[in-house]
Amino acid sequence: MALFSFTEFNSFEDLFMDQLQDLYDAEQRLTKALPKMAQAAHNPQLKNAFEMHLRETENHVRRLERVFQMCGAQPKAKTCQAMKGLIDEGEEIISASGDPDVKDAGLIAAAQRVEHYEMAGYGTVRTFAQQLGHQDCARLLQETLDEEGAADKKLTQIAESTVNVHAATT
Amino acid sequence: MALFSFTEFNSFEDLFMDQLQDLYDAEQRLTKALPKMAQAAHNPQLKNAFEMHLRETENHVRRLERVFQMCGAQPKAKTCQAMKGLIDEGEEIISASGDPDVKDAGLIAAAQRVEHYEMAGYGTVRTFAQQLGHQDCARLLQETLDEEGAADKKLTQIAESTVNVHAATT
Repeated sequence: MALFSFTEFNSFEDLFMDQLQDLYDAEQRLTKALPKMAQAAHNPQLKNAFEMHLRETENHVRRLERVFQMCGAQPKAKTCQAMKGLIDEGEEIISASGDPDVKDAGLIAAAQRVEHYEMAGYGTVRTFAQQLGHQDCARLLQETLDEEGAADKKLTQIAESTVNVHAATT
Repeated sequence: MALFSFTEFNSFEDLFMDQLQDLYDAEQRLTKALPKMAQAAHNPQLKNAFEMHLRETENHVRRLERVFQMCGAQPKAKTCQAMKGLIDEGEEIISASGDPDVKDAGLIAAAQRVEHYEMAGYGTVRTFAQQLGHQDCARLLQETLDEEGAADKKLTQIAESTVNVHAATT
């Protein structure tokens, strides 16, 4: 959400649009951040997970564009302050020095915060869409929500099965 | 996590400390933000939920201090860029004009993003503590994780039972 924009929420539809615009900005930022995360990852499974999630994220951007269009609105992005901060956290890990396995564990920690942000965001807009009677939009948003949840679980699995185990031997 | 701090992660313990310092800053910021969220809330149940979660959050700060001490470290905060952004988003809703029920739905949306950030963060440090053999710390961190999850569910219940229903009639 943009800062100090003197927003007006006169209807639930206004808030729904605001939330979609926040996620549209967040997803676009993420398409630029994920290649850097993939490049920085040392563990091949982790690198692959980031690359796979980049392709999903590109699809999430297109899916949001369809949702805007289904609501008769032009796709519009509104600066997402939280995603800016979340990506800053990932970049700090990328630029840190130290053990590659520990850095991988840090990349997973940063990425899981991103996934959780998106799960909260998509859970909200899916519920808003249902409440507003936009059932087709709700179904599309649920698809993205499911993919964010699956990406988070995949990261947990990589962390627990290999990355954290190697990192803990440092 | 602090930005451009030229961090070194030479051991898993370094990363564990970094993650605790991030959460320690995040929780302290939240103790300042929650009273403003409670004051801005129109719905009495929502106001009450924010006030109750403020008391829990104050306890989370103290619990993190115990975890630092149990690890033989001084409690230290490291600027959490993501929580700064998340709180900015909440403040945008607080300062917006419009319908009180719609604004309440926006406050819940912002607060659930905060809860999800914290769930990701505490899930990470709980797992790190287990991997590092700090079982007592892991148990304390799990308590906070459970409370963040319960706070998120409470917000969903308030949204779905009253706030969103009223907001959708605007």
